[in-house]
Amino acid sequence: MKFFNSFGPNPAIVRIFMAEKGIELESQEVDLMAGENRQEAHLKRNPSGQMPALEMDNGNYVSEVTAIMEYLDEKFPDEKGLIGNTPEERAETRMWTRKIDLLICEPLANGGRCGPMYEIFKTRMPVDQSLAEGLTNWGNHYMNWLDDQMEGKTYICGDRFSMADILFFGWMNFMGSLGGGIMPEQKNLTAWKERMAARPSAEA
Amino acid sequence: MKFFNSFGPNPAIVRIFMAEKGIELESQEVDLMAGENRQEAHLKRNPSGQMPALEMDNGNYVSEVTAIMEYLDEKFPDEKGLIGNTPEERAETRMWTRKIDLLICEPLANGGRCGPMYEIFKTRMPVDQSLAEGLTNWGNHYMNWLDDQMEGKTYICGDRFSMADILFFGWMNFMGSLGGGIMPEQKNLTAWKERMAARPSAEA
Repeated sequence: MKFFNSFGPNPAIVRIFMAEKGIELESQEVDLMAGENRQEAHLKRNPSGQMPALEMDNGNYVSEVTAIMEYLDEKFPDEKGLIGNTPEERAETRMWTRKIDLLICEPLANGGRCGPMYEIFKTRMPVDQSLAEGLTNWGNHYMNWLDDQMEGKTYICGDRFSMADILFFGWMNFMGSLGGGIMPEQKNLTAWKERMAARPSAEA
Repeated sequence: MKFFNSFGPNPAIVRIFMAEKGIELESQEVDLMAGENRQEAHLKRNPSGQMPALEMDNGNYVSEVTAIMEYLDEKFPDEKGLIGNTPEERAETRMWTRKIDLLICEPLANGGRCGPMYEIFKTRMPVDQSLAEGLTNWGNHYMNWLDDQMEGKTYICGDRFSMADILFFGWMNFMGSLGGGIMPEQKNLTAWKERMAARPSAEA
């Protein structure tokens, strides 16, 4: 296997997942800022031109962080249960992962791509500056909802640390570094992010 | 197990998946048009108030169609491989499912919720009419991209029929019934939709 890595939140999500599981893979850097991921060599690895990608054991490539993490969990089984150790735990992890993807991370990410990051993305994705504010508001609405959902919970799946935490932390850590993401008044999410940042994997 | 069903594309996706696998479950109707899914009884099943939901074997609930389909595939194993029969096949299915979710279905669905369906959704989701056109354009951009990707392929994962086809067909069948979705000039997707509509599961 070979991991195609770059700057940005999505590669970091997979690196954190690998650090939690103790997986080390051969890796190759792709120059995201220079747009290398939008050129032919990388489009053969990932037809939507995004980062990261993984060359699998059969020589084919897989992209999309959730698909990569599920694959790595199948190929490197352990008792940590980052996807879950029972069908019901896996269902809960996948449920929260998709809610966070669709309701929060994707609107906020696309709001950023259409707004402060427009110049970087204008030749890469169908960004439209008129969407920036509305998509950011959409994501923030559900961030407040998630803050309420986190009342009394240590991790997104309750007491159980999972892929859902890793996906959300990867995005919130990146957005926080740009001055966005979780707001101080979101007390539950702020405390959750501090717990996540204290894990050694946060440096991956 | 008990399936909480309603009008709309997402419950149809799970019904098609169950029909393909020959699963029959006890079900209960939730009145989506009357907003029953946004009331307390359903919010206990699904805190984001969407449809469908599934009561699992341990009495907990799971929502999000991809999580429900993965759970049903684990609980009713067969050789059909709708998620995939190997780690590499599952990775491919999950990759395409997420690309279709994030790049096409979610922008088009939210474009519709902010546009023609604004009156239905204005008390349900943080809809913003200024997003309708831009989100629809975003989804259509990637629909053209997917049409190119489908050149020479029977199903989204090549020769292999999967959850990715079911997810995309559920949305395209619904949007087509409202005059949207796949356009005739998208020849590969048009032919794919005809193949999907000819399967007995399409009536589920």
